[in-house]
Amino acid sequence: MSKPATPVAPPLKDELDIVIPTIRNLDFLEMWRPFFQPYHLIIVQDGDPTKTIKVPEGFDYELYNRNDINRILGPKASCISFKDSACRCFGFLVSKKKYIFTIDDDCFVAKDPTGKEINALQQHIQNLLTPSTPFFFNTLYDPFRDGADFVRGYPFSMREGVPTAVSHGLWLNIPDYDAPTQLVKPLERNTRYVDAVLTIPKGTLFPMCGMNLAFDRELIGPAMYFGLMGDGQPIGRYDDMWAGWCTKVITDHLGLGVKTGLPYIWHSKASNPFVNLKKEYKGIYWQEDIIPFFQSVTLPKECTTVQKCYTELSKLVKEKLGPIDPYFQKLADAMVTWIDAWDELNSPAQSAPAAADAKKDGSSSKKK
Amino acid sequence: MSKPATPVAPPLKDELDIVIPTIRNLDFLEMWRPFFQPYHLIIVQDGDPTKTIKVPEGFDYELYNRNDINRILGPKASCISFKDSACRCFGFLVSKKKYIFTIDDDCFVAKDPTGKEINALQQHIQNLLTPSTPFFFNTLYDPFRDGADFVRGYPFSMREGVPTAVSHGLWLNIPDYDAPTQLVKPLERNTRYVDAVLTIPKGTLFPMCGMNLAFDRELIGPAMYFGLMGDGQPIGRYDDMWAGWCTKVITDHLGLGVKTGLPYIWHSKASNPFVNLKKEYKGIYWQEDIIPFFQSVTLPKECTTVQKCYTELSKLVKEKLGPIDPYFQKLADAMVTWIDAWDELNSPAQSAPAAADAKKDGSSSKKK
Repeated sequence: MSKPATPVAPPLKDELDIVIPTIRNLDFLEMWRPFFQPYHLIIVQDGDPTKTIKVPEGFDYELYNRNDINRILGPKASCISFKDSACRCFGFLVSKKKYIFTIDDDCFVAKDPTGKEINALQQHIQNLLTPSTPFFFNTLYDPFRDGADFVRGYPFSMREGVPTAVSHGLWLNIPDYDAPTQLVKPLERNTRYVDAVLTIPKGTLFPMCGMNLAFDRELIGPAMYFGLMGDGQPIGRYDDMWAGWCTKVITDHLGLGVKTGLPYIWHSKASNPFVNLKKEYKGIYWQEDIIPFFQSVTLPKECTTVQKCYTELSKLVKEKLGPIDPYFQKLADAMVTWIDAWDELNSPAQSAPAAADAKKDGSSSKKK
Repeated sequence: MSKPATPVAPPLKDELDIVIPTIRNLDFLEMWRPFFQPYHLIIVQDGDPTKTIKVPEGFDYELYNRNDINRILGPKASCISFKDSACRCFGFLVSKKKYIFTIDDDCFVAKDPTGKEINALQQHIQNLLTPSTPFFFNTLYDPFRDGADFVRGYPFSMREGVPTAVSHGLWLNIPDYDAPTQLVKPLERNTRYVDAVLTIPKGTLFPMCGMNLAFDRELIGPAMYFGLMGDGQPIGRYDDMWAGWCTKVITDHLGLGVKTGLPYIWHSKASNPFVNLKKEYKGIYWQEDIIPFFQSVTLPKECTTVQKCYTELSKLVKEKLGPIDPYFQKLADAMVTWIDAWDELNSPAQSAPAAADAKKDGSSSKKK
């Protein structure tokens, strides 16, 4: 293994929050207990705020429902989706930690080919704490893994790599297919354990799935906005895609890396393809224009922070995608609102006690 | 599995040549017999042409030594390297088949994690006969493999893919490291079997290794020139790298794909790192300029064939890399000579009986 710029450290207990969007009791945490219990959870309750979400005993968590979101953000709460897992990004906003791991509540612990249970969080941390190599492809995959390195012909000047902003994990069992593919291949299961982590090269977009995802909040947090989806919106199931496109363009611009591959989680339940088709329909149609747009975006040099990049991107979205549908104008406005909310909750002043107050105000249902 | 544009066919017995550069008896073929015997071999004998290379009984082959190369190419033989595995590209030149698989004589049959011997050629054929997806990254890797598909968020307009020109296989046991890495990690072995094939995205260069490589000669053959290396040249062990950089730039320009990953072969023997260091020294130094050059190359629209692309590239090499060292001027000239030789031996007129004559003339040591 090449020497990583940052050593692979212990599990970052005090520097990482686990964000879980949910509408149900969190029994799935039982299986994750050995791996998650040392960490703090941020639970974003979607749907009916009067419903009580049960969290297994012994977990350290704060929980926000829609009333909390509205109270904390005021009018800016309009940028947080309702009745869609896009609401998870509220958790990213209120976290004060450097790292985020977010996971869906239908995702369980997977096993590697030897039968060993996979500590997904540990692998994400390893991915995030070792550099990425976006400028040239390494055929033996992540050169910072044990037993691997840069192969012959890899330029030495590029071997230091760049900081890793995102670690995108995969799924065994139910693959993350769109509704048409689900309908065509209802029985397909992902059984292939690919023992690799790799950097997605600079200039290449990818479909980022929010099911099993970790990122460095300080490096890329403000770009992890999951858009306007679900209730009152013409589209769903494109929240993570939207965040992925924006994130990749911005990491490329800022010289940061995105890794994909390990860790796997066990995705237990295929969502209803007929419901999904309705949610996705416009996304499937629009992405044919959205992706060429993101492929051609170039951000100006002056955009030296994620916030500046994201604000610039919102202008380009309004200008270039706005003509496709008024939805994109609304989305572009929400992107600006999101950045305002981010700055409000994450200003240097807010990182101190004031922020803690804001959180306490909001977490009426907070249980520690 | 998505429907591939080309069905995965039987093993292309009459459409594929196996090219092997060597300086020794080909005992290694014994282990490959079950997989290679149905195919035709083109053996390029490097070094002393008076030496007799023994080929195990029962293989169908033609063998070319330096005298043959000189006789067939005349003055153009100057473009074929001597005392370097770069000489293998002579085999690509004289083949009349659509596909080439080339392998080093220190590469043996590897086993997959279940202990089954891997038919590397069969996997290469599968890679070549299914499309590549260079415009957008698929997180479940090659969507044309059994049990995989395009994931949610993959644009439908891009799912047809593009023809695959190159299949780059990997190596278990001795990894393909450069001399400095060999020196630093003499005991490192590659034991990780990564069960994946993936398309190297458009715009991304990679270090192509010639040890275990297959390609579609009709689609990309003229770009598979392994440069001027070895005897009388200031550089060695960059033959496949050179071919890889040129090939990737041209496949990107022409809308073709390059896959890497499976199949693995078992690489038995690490070459001497001290000897390698001497051979590689200038390559390690020059690649810091060469790679930015290839990363910035754009070929004009009028370059609609591999030959035109390659000729244009030779001009750019002379202009942009020539100032680094006179070697690049010589290399640029050799690139032109190579294309002349390619066109001479592969003109439509030559594909018929005349070509067969040329081969017969050359293969004084041909044994069938």
